[in-house]
Amino acid sequence: MKQAIVARADLNMGEGKLAAQVAHAALMAYEDADRQSQSAWKGSGQKKVVLQADGEAALFKLADKAEREGLPHAIVRDAGHTELEPGTVSALAIGPASEGAIDRVTGDLSLY
Amino acid sequence: MKQAIVARADLNMGEGKLAAQVAHAALMAYEDADRQSQSAWKGSGQKKVVLQADGEAALFKLADKAEREGLPHAIVRDAGHTELEPGTVSALAIGPASEGAIDRVTGDLSLY
Repeated sequence: MKQAIVARADLNMGEGKLAAQVAHAALMAYEDADRQSQSAWKGSGQKKVVLQADGEAALFKLADKAEREGLPHAIVRDAGHTELEPGTVSALAIGPASEGAIDRVTGDLSLY
Repeated sequence: MKQAIVARADLNMGEGKLAAQVAHAALMAYEDADRQSQSAWKGSGQKKVVLQADGEAALFKLADKAEREGLPHAIVRDAGHTELEPGTVSALAIGPASEGAIDRVTGDLSLY
């Protein structure tokens, strides 16, 4: 089991900002998962990988793929209080789900 | 309502690694909170701040303070698969709780 969080590298977020967006996405996708996946993932150490993509279109494309695969997922829009414009799409989390299922969606992406 | 996540700046984690540790801590502390705090926080936009501290001792001291204030919190130890030694304490999340209660514990810390 794992969860993948894909953040936009093209926004050049500061590292604290990036971490907050990733945490936000992780929590939202976790809540979108069924109880069984939540438990299995927590029991196996809550594995997370943080990946990168360039641009909003890439995140929406991945979200669409996750949707078609029936995977829990969530897109984050920043409230825009600090670095980003309000409503900026900053990150997407997919899972927790099986490693194979996650890799089918995010397999081509590089680590952030 | 907010959640503060305090990460160790002295470990010089890469930004993807840092984001994963922060997400891990955020989710664990969220699960430590009661349902009412969880709902209130989510309803108000899930505010998160990422702060920095130097060293394990600083995190334990803050966790102790959070414990005495009765605030939900969680410390993350890294599994050590990649950048860090196994068992390294990397981050602490406190809340969701009221902004005032969080600030009483983390008020002196700088943004990461």
